Amino acid sequence: MSQEAAVLFANEAFYLAFSMRDIKTMDELWSTHKYVSCVHPGWQPLTDRETVMESWVGIFGNPGAPRVELREPHVVFHGDVAVVTCYEVLDEGVLAATNLFRHEADSWKMIHHHASPVAEKPIFETPEPRAPRLQ
Amino acid sequence: MSQEAAVLFANEAFYLAFSMRDIKTMDELWSTHKYVSCVHPGWQPLTDRETVMESWVGIFGNPGAPRVELREPHVVFHGDVAVVTCYEVLDEGVLAATNLFRHEADSWKMIHHHASPVAEKPIFETPEPRAPRLQ
Repeated sequence: MSQEAAVLFANEAFYLAFSMRDIKTMDELWSTHKYVSCVHPGWQPLTDRETVMESWVGIFGNPGAPRVELREPHVVFHGDVAVVTCYEVLDEGVLAATNLFRHEADSWKMIHHHASPVAEKPIFETPEPRAPRLQ
Repeated sequence: MSQEAAVLFANEAFYLAFSMRDIKTMDELWSTHKYVSCVHPGWQPLTDRETVMESWVGIFGNPGAPRVELREPHVVFHGDVAVVTCYEVLDEGVLAATNLFRHEADSWKMIHHHASPVAEKPIFETPEPRAPRLQ
């Protein structure tokens, strides 16, 4: 797998863990570095791992937490760090996200997430993802 | 100067160039990497250098563009990349920002900026900066 594919995979895994409210996978996706950081929409920055993971526990425990669909990820590499910008489509609107991953022990671990509302809904270049079919 | 001080200096230079609407300095602060990126508040992500610099030209040319005051920067190093989270205080409210810098040829160059509104005004740990005194 190319490094770009590996980062896109880690980014998709993040949104899958988010949608599934899977705190164990979410915890595994993040670097164990003490000072990872996160800016949830409208929140103040969280700047240490413990607080970031507590925030996910809180969000996953909230029945009103939004379902999130990833759109149009864009990856750029800067040494061992990959910068992903993408959209998050929610029922309430569209967010722009910055997701940072660091190459650690042969995998890409999240070190930062920042999501915030986009004022105008973008016209996406790629078609809408198909809903999963029940077998 | 320590690396942390050097990154904080680059971060302050960014806000000074912003406040002074100094497009030449703003251009010099950014990496010349083709794919630097920027998410202005409410905007869609800009993912190449040309578009990012055009956005600053537009913002600086707008007489209604906000004055921005930097508060409480927090730096974490991940290899050659420094992740800064901080607040931006505007007349209209407070933003949370993610600023990324990359170590290039002995200086720290901006590779990404993402700013978005904070719902509740934070209680800052550090006192209000003094207005500069005229000599």
